Amino acid sequence: MSEWKKTNLLDLQDLSKEEIDLVFETAKSFKEVSAREVKKVPALRGKTVVMLFFETSTRTRTSFELAAKRLSADTINIAASSSALSKGESVLDTARNIEAMNVDMIVVRHRSSGIPGMLSENLKASVINAGDGCRSHPTQALLDIFTIKEKLGRMEGLKVGIVGDILHSRVARSNIWGLTTLGAQVTLCGPSTLMPVDIEKMGVTVNYNVDEVVREVDVLMLLRLQKERQQDNFLPSIREYAKEFGINSSRLKQAKKDMLIMHPGPTNRGVELSADVADGERSVILEQVTNGVAIRMAILYLLSGTHKSIETEQE
Amino acid sequence: MSEWKKTNLLDLQDLSKEEIDLVFETAKSFKEVSAREVKKVPALRGKTVVMLFFETSTRTRTSFELAAKRLSADTINIAASSSALSKGESVLDTARNIEAMNVDMIVVRHRSSGIPGMLSENLKASVINAGDGCRSHPTQALLDIFTIKEKLGRMEGLKVGIVGDILHSRVARSNIWGLTTLGAQVTLCGPSTLMPVDIEKMGVTVNYNVDEVVREVDVLMLLRLQKERQQDNFLPSIREYAKEFGINSSRLKQAKKDMLIMHPGPTNRGVELSADVADGERSVILEQVTNGVAIRMAILYLLSGTHKSIETEQE
Amino acid sequence: MSEWKKTNLLDLQDLSKEEIDLVFETAKSFKEVSAREVKKVPALRGKTVVMLFFETSTRTRTSFELAAKRLSADTINIAASSSALSKGESVLDTARNIEAMNVDMIVVRHRSSGIPGMLSENLKASVINAGDGCRSHPTQALLDIFTIKEKLGRMEGLKVGIVGDILHSRVARSNIWGLTTLGAQVTLCGPSTLMPVDIEKMGVTVNYNVDEVVREVDVLMLLRLQKERQQDNFLPSIREYAKEFGINSSRLKQAKKDMLIMHPGPTNRGVELSADVADGERSVILEQVTNGVAIRMAILYLLSGTHKSIETEQE
Repeated sequence: MSEWKKTNLLDLQDLSKEEIDLVFETAKSFKEVSAREVKKVPALRGKTVVMLFFETSTRTRTSFELAAKRLSADTINIAASSSALSKGESVLDTARNIEAMNVDMIVVRHRSSGIPGMLSENLKASVINAGDGCRSHPTQALLDIFTIKEKLGRMEGLKVGIVGDILHSRVARSNIWGLTTLGAQVTLCGPSTLMPVDIEKMGVTVNYNVDEVVREVDVLMLLRLQKERQQDNFLPSIREYAKEFGINSSRLKQAKKDMLIMHPGPTNRGVELSADVADGERSVILEQVTNGVAIRMAILYLLSGTHKSIETEQE
Repeated sequence: MSEWKKTNLLDLQDLSKEEIDLVFETAKSFKEVSAREVKKVPALRGKTVVMLFFETSTRTRTSFELAAKRLSADTINIAASSSALSKGESVLDTARNIEAMNVDMIVVRHRSSGIPGMLSENLKASVINAGDGCRSHPTQALLDIFTIKEKLGRMEGLKVGIVGDILHSRVARSNIWGLTTLGAQVTLCGPSTLMPVDIEKMGVTVNYNVDEVVREVDVLMLLRLQKERQQDNFLPSIREYAKEFGINSSRLKQAKKDMLIMHPGPTNRGVELSADVADGERSVILEQVTNGVAIRMAILYLLSGTHKSIETEQE
Repeated sequence: MSEWKKTNLLDLQDLSKEEIDLVFETAKSFKEVSAREVKKVPALRGKTVVMLFFETSTRTRTSFELAAKRLSADTINIAASSSALSKGESVLDTARNIEAMNVDMIVVRHRSSGIPGMLSENLKASVINAGDGCRSHPTQALLDIFTIKEKLGRMEGLKVGIVGDILHSRVARSNIWGLTTLGAQVTLCGPSTLMPVDIEKMGVTVNYNVDEVVREVDVLMLLRLQKERQQDNFLPSIREYAKEFGINSSRLKQAKKDMLIMHPGPTNRGVELSADVADGERSVILEQVTNGVAIRMAILYLLSGTHKSIETEQE
């Protein structure tokens, strides 16, 4: 078993295959804790975890907050709108001030790519990226891959399709890296205006025909379509998108028998997928949510065990 | 002593007289806990209680949150405005996602009648109605009736007047049911435009003369007047309302010696009641607040003891 | 060692020199707690502390919340915007309702001077002033003075300069009182439009030449410039202010070798001080933040030990 040495979680790219396995092993035992009558262990008693969210998010914030509480940590929520930022303080200043209160871990979400990385270089507290811009959302990818392994028992050689707005998706980027690292084959699908140029360099295939993708894959990961993309002229219309890429039960007739439907949530029912697909037998959307708490407990637990020296921190 | 079998608290109508008595008995011992130096018992340690509020409410949310914390539960606050609903997710989707994090109880407030009931039919987590539309607010009625029993020692044969905007009041509806079930006689009073048609079918009397009501009753329960009702043309003016239905000390001269003044809060001083009445000897408004925490501790405690099977759940 | 008898913390003026020393002694041991692996003591287990903030504040609210949690108290956050005040309830009504839930301590911030004092006269719960109007911010002054004593080892005879908008600063008022009481000499500096008339009566000197002040003092305390002051015509321009009163490294060349730079935060880098001064060797700004948690733990701890009788409370 690999030993954990990381002090931050910024990108899935920072984790080796062995480290990902260690996260999964740890998450498995914490998943069992959340299924108990008494969903609580004393592991992080007396530690302080701050959720510093510059973008609102009910589900990710709640998932981290519950994870921390079930580990017995003290938690503080800071929403950007109510923070000193509205008084013009910089992100780093805010974080340094929080850290000065002897905070152990800062879970940060920000609309700009790179903010968690910048913070990690300047803080002694552990920084956990809860989503930065279009770049990275490592705990989401970890929980997605954990769910696939749990359901299908393996990653090597699996075919995973990711459908939607790849261009703006931090979820897609983190998953592509994690899935290919663990030996899965990834096919991307979506409107060509929302497909990053040269994305094949990440070791993936692009196929604009969603029906072909549905036929081939073991896992179909759907992305949330931001309705603002239409205003930004990436899309002719939401209805057009739903017709060409939306997954409904008739489209699934050609899918493999055990193919999984995944979605990071919140879903746009009637856009990325129909309601019956979201609630259907193939869907593991709610199990992703359940596993999210376990993955975040594992990350908080593993990061808490190391003592970071800011000088020796490599990027 | 009755055994508790309910898994949700949606309406006071769902509770038998014996179950109401069990809530009161349990609340009595928890009231004692909140009066201690150390206001905390380990009953719900390792349980997760989520406050899912689609309408803002300081006092009800705080009362439930404190109740859960004093029982040692982990608590999460979710305010609708910051939730995924602003991204178009449905109420049920939001609640299912929260439940998927292994949440034990969801305390929900929503401006639409029936939302807590709909959620309870679709979730395994216990659902507690913290107010839905104009329909039901069961914990408020329980704390009101608990307060009356505590002060006057009985319910059978008591005369209770409820004064105000009956039409839009979930507090009135829940109290009418609870009071009449326990043997009290209820008289309703308020502007005829704010009196529901055929309300007498609920077993109450209507009397538009507030002075007559004041003379007769043992308890006078005042409702909050929503100032928006004037814009909606239910009322000529707030001043007119205060003159005709507002309770001041001169109006109370004809009241029985031990008559109680109650109000669910927040009060509009100078509208439903004068400041000296709100702060006067008859007023038990703050004792209602104190008892609210005890009642909510009792409800959380009793609901946590049962293990719900969604199949056997009858509506 | 003095015995603690206060039940509220409204103003630094209410504390004797001995009581301030007791706060510092207590804070010293709690600072050690926050530096431990397990930052938690059971001192306030089963007590309830409510943060009732009518003005938003990330850092002060977080500091109090963490202090309470590290003492094992249950905490509730109430932000004014989401409170019943938006339904027209008065500040006192809100506080009385909170207190009726058997709350032990209420930490209150309000834009109007005197609100915490008014509440303390009407509540049995302990009231802690977390900033009221332009009047008082006692925990800020305590943490500032604690930091000075920790760094320089004494107060008697120290020269402290306070630079900025003295007129509107509750931080300045509380510090002036505390510093002079403990034997320091205070010099105020800032635009004459932002200097209170007759302020010398508080036992301080006024000097409008910031360079002279820099040369003389052992501690330079900079105040946050509210950018709104320009609109209110107190200032010709922010740039003008920065030029005349802003502290940069060239201005510091004439300072004493060990002179400290302090700021209550959040800083306006480029206005009150340059970035290199804020992050420089003289700056103890982040240590002020660290000490803030310790001071607040001490205050919560000391206040919790006393049992207030509202009748015997003198003002």
